[in-house]
Amino acid sequence: MTDSDKSPIDFWFDFSSPYGYLMSEQIDALAAKYGRKVRWHPVLLGVIFQATGSRPPADGVSAKGKYMFTDFHRSARHLGIPYNPPSRFPLPTQNAARAYYWLHSQDCGLARRFAHAVYRGFFVDDLDISSPDTVLDIAAGLEIDRASLAAALQTPEVKARLKDECERALAAGVFGSPHVVIDGEAFFGADRLGQIEHWLQTGGF
Amino acid sequence: MTDSDKSPIDFWFDFSSPYGYLMSEQIDALAAKYGRKVRWHPVLLGVIFQATGSRPPADGVSAKGKYMFTDFHRSARHLGIPYNPPSRFPLPTQNAARAYYWLHSQDCGLARRFAHAVYRGFFVDDLDISSPDTVLDIAAGLEIDRASLAAALQTPEVKARLKDECERALAAGVFGSPHVVIDGEAFFGADRLGQIEHWLQTGGF
Repeated sequence: MTDSDKSPIDFWFDFSSPYGYLMSEQIDALAAKYGRKVRWHPVLLGVIFQATGSRPPADGVSAKGKYMFTDFHRSARHLGIPYNPPSRFPLPTQNAARAYYWLHSQDCGLARRFAHAVYRGFFVDDLDISSPDTVLDIAAGLEIDRASLAAALQTPEVKARLKDECERALAAGVFGSPHVVIDGEAFFGADRLGQIEHWLQTGGF
Repeated sequence: MTDSDKSPIDFWFDFSSPYGYLMSEQIDALAAKYGRKVRWHPVLLGVIFQATGSRPPADGVSAKGKYMFTDFHRSARHLGIPYNPPSRFPLPTQNAARAYYWLHSQDCGLARRFAHAVYRGFFVDDLDISSPDTVLDIAAGLEIDRASLAAALQTPEVKARLKDECERALAAGVFGSPHVVIDGEAFFGADRLGQIEHWLQTGGF
């Protein structure tokens, strides 16, 4: 099988998910090492949780919440990824996700750079990525036309695209972020990077 | 610092926890590589969940439940550990845990071998480890006197010991299984083995 015959990997995530951010900094390079491309799918965990009955990882359990904030930071250090705990967390991400899909319909590479800039804006520079102005500022930093994006965010087509992606996520069995699917095999969590590499190396184990 | 100055690692788990089983097959050798010993603490997740408000990982979320059964098995294959999905799961483990503490009060090494035999009995040989008879059979296989253990399981001292360990677990911040503590730093889940090794190598990162 040549590299071009290999199916792309699907990467489902919410822009407010710390472990999604960690995955976003690793998955493209890991996939490329094994001749794979990655399709990124920002979705809304609120929609996923409501539909599946799933919940945020700590969800009111104070011992677990305390642990997880330590673990976000430590997992980032372990992987060598910059991380500063955001002062507003979690937050709504529909503006960032809609902007991603509008950009993606025009230029996949630009959409990918935008997604990295949103994640780093949130988890490194403590930006309020829930704000439409912040999303437009991040886009403007990539020389994306601010007025065109502002208009696009209000269109029914862009809103419908995000809604469709959330429905596709549910159909694909997504219940949290990050959720990676390789040839039908699902991997949940940034802590599955080792298994993902093992799977790509061996073609399944 | 010589090896004998290093604090032991605490390993909290429930005998019904698949990820606890995976950790049990790795943690002693990993600790020994860095001159550490491990204190094993079987506890009851039912007690932990009730006290913390935590829940089993999938807890009625069907997409997550389906994923997790795949992940238990795949995680075992990834680590090279034998695993056969138990036909009864989860199940109560107070008899196995009480037997462990009674044995530990007499012979630490024997208690450790018994703990491995219980976990392998459940996750390899599909034994009903909730049954006192099965627990006694496993013990008898290690040449532990069956009648003495049967009597011990009924004593208030042994029951109180398990209750105390559950309270110590809660005081240590345990909210699930496996939960490993190294010099005050907590690691939750068998998927933290890589971070645990990194931590032991570097003394914290």
